[in-house]
Amino acid sequence: MPPQRYQSRQDKLLSLIREAEVDALLVTGVSNVRYLTGFSGDSSALLIGPSVRVLISDSRYQTQIAEECPGLDADIRTQKTKPHDQLAAVIAKARPGKLAIESHILSVHELGRFKEAIEKTDAGKCIEIKPLAETVEKLRQIKDDEEVAETRRAIHIAERAFVAMKATLTGELTERQVAHELEHTMRRLGADRSAFEPIIAVGDRSALPHHRSGDRRMSESTFLLVDWGAALPSGYRSDLTRVLATDTVPSQLQELHGVVLKAQLAGIAAIRPGAKLKDVDSAARRVIEDAGYGGFFGHGLGHGIGLHIHEEPRLSSVAEGELQTGNIVTVEPGVYLPDFGGVRIEDDVIVTPDGHEVLSSLPKSL
Amino acid sequence: MPPQRYQSRQDKLLSLIREAEVDALLVTGVSNVRYLTGFSGDSSALLIGPSVRVLISDSRYQTQIAEECPGLDADIRTQKTKPHDQLAAVIAKARPGKLAIESHILSVHELGRFKEAIEKTDAGKCIEIKPLAETVEKLRQIKDDEEVAETRRAIHIAERAFVAMKATLTGELTERQVAHELEHTMRRLGADRSAFEPIIAVGDRSALPHHRSGDRRMSESTFLLVDWGAALPSGYRSDLTRVLATDTVPSQLQELHGVVLKAQLAGIAAIRPGAKLKDVDSAARRVIEDAGYGGFFGHGLGHGIGLHIHEEPRLSSVAEGELQTGNIVTVEPGVYLPDFGGVRIEDDVIVTPDGHEVLSSLPKSL
Repeated sequence: MPPQRYQSRQDKLLSLIREAEVDALLVTGVSNVRYLTGFSGDSSALLIGPSVRVLISDSRYQTQIAEECPGLDADIRTQKTKPHDQLAAVIAKARPGKLAIESHILSVHELGRFKEAIEKTDAGKCIEIKPLAETVEKLRQIKDDEEVAETRRAIHIAERAFVAMKATLTGELTERQVAHELEHTMRRLGADRSAFEPIIAVGDRSALPHHRSGDRRMSESTFLLVDWGAALPSGYRSDLTRVLATDTVPSQLQELHGVVLKAQLAGIAAIRPGAKLKDVDSAARRVIEDAGYGGFFGHGLGHGIGLHIHEEPRLSSVAEGELQTGNIVTVEPGVYLPDFGGVRIEDDVIVTPDGHEVLSSLPKSL
Repeated sequence: MPPQRYQSRQDKLLSLIREAEVDALLVTGVSNVRYLTGFSGDSSALLIGPSVRVLISDSRYQTQIAEECPGLDADIRTQKTKPHDQLAAVIAKARPGKLAIESHILSVHELGRFKEAIEKTDAGKCIEIKPLAETVEKLRQIKDDEEVAETRRAIHIAERAFVAMKATLTGELTERQVAHELEHTMRRLGADRSAFEPIIAVGDRSALPHHRSGDRRMSESTFLLVDWGAALPSGYRSDLTRVLATDTVPSQLQELHGVVLKAQLAGIAAIRPGAKLKDVDSAARRVIEDAGYGGFFGHGLGHGIGLHIHEEPRLSSVAEGELQTGNIVTVEPGVYLPDFGGVRIEDDVIVTPDGHEVLSSLPKSL
């Protein structure tokens, strides 16, 4: 990605830092650092404010930072310095009167050690630490052109791998083998890896929304649920679910599929800028409740995707807030009948100024 | 694993809970919950104390918990309850006077929301929250028989995959393809996945200790560094590094290899119960310093492995503490010369009552 992309993200963050009335933010979330700088390693932090911008890292990453973040100041620790002392020294030098930390990422223990280290420096008494949650994440919710293009690519790769998997499915394959086959194909097509451990659930295992793919063979039932996605080298991801019939399926499964599909279409139809998150959830949930399956849809309707597989905004009955143009969310209602099976249908949808666009395109029939 | 294994771990934890002078511990670390209960999902917590033992989860995991944790009480949330309110309700019912939280895992923000939710319950005023760091981790550092057997298996699978990869290496393969090939083979042999993103570094890329495997082809240099490992379905892992010559290598690389090998053997020789962590590091580091490469070994000598790829104990010049029987650590000195290349040699070693046993067995020659 061009360096000015990161510059522009950092500039937007500076506005939020000013709004929060602090002098700098210490960004410690791995994906947040990556989003702001392009640096793809871990164990590093970005100190950013109107008068400071420095990546705090260690010697393992020195060359990588020079390559990935041209023009960005970096403070590099050697083996002799403890990470907290390095952080404290860089911060003491910048002397922000009020320093925000990412309170949703930094652990209680880390904050304690970090404060101790700062207090030992000569600037210790002049720095006030303020917790600040979900700030870079506010920017990450709204995808820019390059993020949308990468998400489309992640969806396209996942869809092609699914078509290939379906074309070569045989009865003796196990759930785990199908999961590995999908990942292998997605990698051949340019993915870095699966976006998450694919869920391949044969027969009644599909009633477990988070089933771990195991040794069950395709031949052991007449249907399977597949929940999979691709993660690209850039970090962007897709997340899709389909239920496949491998033989004649029970009529109740047909019925469930019809209900879930209707619910999914109702959820998608409710997506537009300004729609309340809980209203989108309930548009789909109502269809399932009206069909008498309300007790068997135990999770939220969907979630944002991006550098993480689960991001804001969340579509659920307890979510607060509204959709905004540029959000990319999954829409994935499901009905799960214990000991029988479950149906979930999941697509990835972007919020557009006019409403929405469904980014995924695989047929939804059984 | 047999359920009494988990019972015995929980009992050991109860002693630590009593030592910490609290009435219960809220375990929120995913791997800690798994270690104590066998539950392999996420987003769940274990409340444990002398008079309470309950797994707090949601309806997605209800069936999985019944299968994986027979006999364990579970509190299951539905879509209508917020996670923090569920936690608060379960805790209010148990009424621990002093409740410890995992302060190295819980974020500052989560702790705040959690406290608010507890204060709203009728038991709110009677519960004092105490931060407690790295408690389950103390147990996890000492591997029991089943954990050692799983680690041996993870090492064996990684080694077999390496032999297969070496046997089929060709010049046109890219770093990324070799990484994927290794993972594919490890899965065929029973692994769940790579223990971490394998580092395949051709030529001067090996000078980046955390290089991301990319598009460079094997034919572009005469040597490559391979840092890889297997993760089993049980969660246990291996972590190994070798440098391979694919043609005649520069004499300086030969020299580096000799220095690093000597350092690694010196580090391994220092491993025994009671050895100071920093002394093990310095046994290896001294060899590299004496050879004049002290400035090019920028990371610690090694780290524990288990359910995580990086665990306690850490072998480094700033680590405090001593090795104990049952620790499994990597020993991985390296020398990295920018723009030329690096050598790292890594094996997995268990601390035994008599000293140590090297669990890995691949030849270390170039």
